[in-house]
Amino acid sequence: MNYFPAALQDLADQFARLPGIGSKTAQRLAFHVLGLPQEEAEAFAEAILEAKRTVHTCPVCQNLTDRELCPICDNDLRDHGQICVVAEPKDVIAMERSREFNGVYHVLHGVISPLNHVTQDDIRIKELLHRVATSQVREIIMATNPDTEGEATAMYISRLLRPMEVKVTRLAYGVPVGSQLEYADEVTLSRALEGRQEI
Amino acid sequence: MNYFPAALQDLADQFARLPGIGSKTAQRLAFHVLGLPQEEAEAFAEAILEAKRTVHTCPVCQNLTDRELCPICDNDLRDHGQICVVAEPKDVIAMERSREFNGVYHVLHGVISPLNHVTQDDIRIKELLHRVATSQVREIIMATNPDTEGEATAMYISRLLRPMEVKVTRLAYGVPVGSQLEYADEVTLSRALEGRQEI
Repeated sequence: MNYFPAALQDLADQFARLPGIGSKTAQRLAFHVLGLPQEEAEAFAEAILEAKRTVHTCPVCQNLTDRELCPICDNDLRDHGQICVVAEPKDVIAMERSREFNGVYHVLHGVISPLNHVTQDDIRIKELLHRVATSQVREIIMATNPDTEGEATAMYISRLLRPMEVKVTRLAYGVPVGSQLEYADEVTLSRALEGRQEI
Repeated sequence: MNYFPAALQDLADQFARLPGIGSKTAQRLAFHVLGLPQEEAEAFAEAILEAKRTVHTCPVCQNLTDRELCPICDNDLRDHGQICVVAEPKDVIAMERSREFNGVYHVLHGVISPLNHVTQDDIRIKELLHRVATSQVREIIMATNPDTEGEATAMYISRLLRPMEVKVTRLAYGVPVGSQLEYADEVTLSRALEGRQEI
């Protein structure tokens, strides 16, 4: 038997469908929203609709934006000949935080992952190839996550790019700054050794 | 600098205001909602508004309901002379799950908690007193949580009820069924000993 009013149960069900939210947490969230003042609950509902209404992908780099072109693609001071390829919009933010990169981005919106039924056609690879074919690109920097799927996706894309005569590079592997050697795993260490540089 | 479109950031901020949701999780949830089909996003927003619109507290027991009277208060087969006082609507569900109680409930919507600035006037104590004064109540069963604030609230209410000539009882303390004695804390054990019963 269900002791919750139907509308409360519906709301809890909506929360439970979000990633990482279990049914207990969903219930707690539904109670919380129900306890909000009317205008705050309306603001929440409106925020969902407004995000869906105004946010779309940039036609050039596929990053999320609410403008015609995203602020980075629209910036003439950035080097449009250098494209950093990342898996997700949040990776753009991580790269920007480093303040080291002045090129532009390409967001794949995922990585190739046969186990999760994500094929090369499900992520924005076509758009990248089209971009390289139709504009002056000197270098593609692959910056997918350094895990199996990120690696495989980077390799797949770099093979597609080979005939297009563009330089393709990959973020360096190595020990993270501020970390301790004794905790570094052996694969990272051997990659760090391989990529050692003169000082 | 903020690299998210404003509407996406707004949505993430809305999620971040929910209890137990940090800013990283809020961001992930906002991305997820943005990726939903239009009609599912609309259903989510509508569920928030619908819950606010239809769910209110039962005028008798203060539990949440979408009817005039909640199904329990509206049920003539339940014993309306026995009121179980709980802190939250979810506690009603826990009690109902035991299938042992055939009385009715009173939901306080909180416990007295000076540290969180919740006073006796912020929870539904007046409504309980009014109910006891105006209807035939034989017994009040205090079933607030067995922690400091739940205890203090139960004690406070039972003092208010004393002049009203109604029997006031408390859920029994003891070792949980299916638990192991070696893991029971000493306060629980001494309460279990105190409340021992002949077999």
